[in-house]
Amino acid sequence: MIIIGEKINGSIPSMAKAIAARDEEYIKKIAIAQDEAGATYIDVCASVAEDIEVETMKWLIELVQSVSDKPIAVDSPSADVVAECLAFCNKPGLANSVSLEGNKCDVIFSAIKDDPRWEVVALLCNDKGIPATAEERLEVFEGIMAKAAEYNIDPSRIHIDPLVEMLCTSEDGIAMVEEVISTIRAKYPTIHITGAISNISFNLPVRKLVNQAFMVLCMKAGLDSAVLDPLNRDMMGMIYATEACLGMDEYCMEYISAYREGLIGPKKD
Amino acid sequence: MIIIGEKINGSIPSMAKAIAARDEEYIKKIAIAQDEAGATYIDVCASVAEDIEVETMKWLIELVQSVSDKPIAVDSPSADVVAECLAFCNKPGLANSVSLEGNKCDVIFSAIKDDPRWEVVALLCNDKGIPATAEERLEVFEGIMAKAAEYNIDPSRIHIDPLVEMLCTSEDGIAMVEEVISTIRAKYPTIHITGAISNISFNLPVRKLVNQAFMVLCMKAGLDSAVLDPLNRDMMGMIYATEACLGMDEYCMEYISAYREGLIGPKKD
Repeated sequence: MIIIGEKINGSIPSMAKAIAARDEEYIKKIAIAQDEAGATYIDVCASVAEDIEVETMKWLIELVQSVSDKPIAVDSPSADVVAECLAFCNKPGLANSVSLEGNKCDVIFSAIKDDPRWEVVALLCNDKGIPATAEERLEVFEGIMAKAAEYNIDPSRIHIDPLVEMLCTSEDGIAMVEEVISTIRAKYPTIHITGAISNISFNLPVRKLVNQAFMVLCMKAGLDSAVLDPLNRDMMGMIYATEACLGMDEYCMEYISAYREGLIGPKKD
Repeated sequence: MIIIGEKINGSIPSMAKAIAARDEEYIKKIAIAQDEAGATYIDVCASVAEDIEVETMKWLIELVQSVSDKPIAVDSPSADVVAECLAFCNKPGLANSVSLEGNKCDVIFSAIKDDPRWEVVALLCNDKGIPATAEERLEVFEGIMAKAAEYNIDPSRIHIDPLVEMLCTSEDGIAMVEEVISTIRAKYPTIHITGAISNISFNLPVRKLVNQAFMVLCMKAGLDSAVLDPLNRDMMGMIYATEACLGMDEYCMEYISAYREGLIGPKKD
């Protein structure tokens, strides 16, 4: 499972405060903790005013790289900012994100096309917003894949995010997102499928229950990447347990190793 | 979800002690707790020497019925004991269990055939033991269904237990049991499919993680009944969350109600 550590994001109030105060120690601590907890990528999203976004991203990316070797997920709502900030990374990571909105695909695909080690997150939305049906999201998906082909971006470099919406307003549970995931998985065995897992539980009590059940079901459908908090030991444990159940971990060796290394289960002092 | 509360079972050391000591208060307390936590049935299994099994079952069943209105799952490895003990129940419950071993089907199906309110657990094993492959288990299943048809037992009265074995010795995770569940579910929409969930995690650390992931995946495959500890709030919460994800709980109303009633989430004092 590919874990995109979500904690260095200015849309989280405590992180916004740390970014505003240029609190290097706090941010370094969170970066190290996510690295040690098993993040594959460390996402960096400044979430600040446009005029200071690039300089803030540069400072954040360099700060994270000063304490962690994990590749960066360069995260901004602006494709131009993402493209500009790739240069601050010591090694190829993840451009987060494209969609069929505006010229995002052109800006970011052209920025990463020459280095096949750069990967990219692609959201299934377009200029009209987030489509309501699986069919329409899959149309957006095909549009993104056509764009990717133009720039010679192999499917194995793409993390499709079907866009997770809150369960509490759904009449049929997660059926739609499951259909999107399993359809894409069947068609592109080497593509990555990701999602911001905790969006599912907005406005519900005991969110961790819903997040965990959702994660298990998405993994069953074909999700192999996720944007989440790797410090959430229950969720990380559930991911290891699900991989074992799904036959991706022969004799539970990885599960048992993760336990022995202290990554899952009750925290040892 | 149908919950068969598993705690009144003499194979659990603390319960064996309480049964041996005829500790009525302890057993009543466990019965009430399972009832309040949401058990559909209260399983009663004496697990004592054959010569005192019926009298012990009678005492246990009457004790449970003195504090709970939930129907009893009459549980013994002996079909004759199960058949004899049905008479101690105030209301129809669950006969636990038949299989293709010996004359179990004949003994128990003939005992329950005349009252369609009695349901029955059927294990997918035969005189040779537990079959190794999904194909063979499904053959046992068909054998049990043929027997049930002879006695005019409707599929909706049967809880098929595919038999859950430990994950740590499996090379392909839960693929086999998933196949058994989904094949049976596709063929018999009204049948119940159950299982002793915690068997999956024998010999593994942090068993609750594996139990929960397994439960979610089995529910996705078509399991609608389970033998488990209803006092396990994490597991009960995961079941409610999974039902909501699977579209069995429109707008999460049941999930939210369970939280408000204090059945799931952190325990309130």
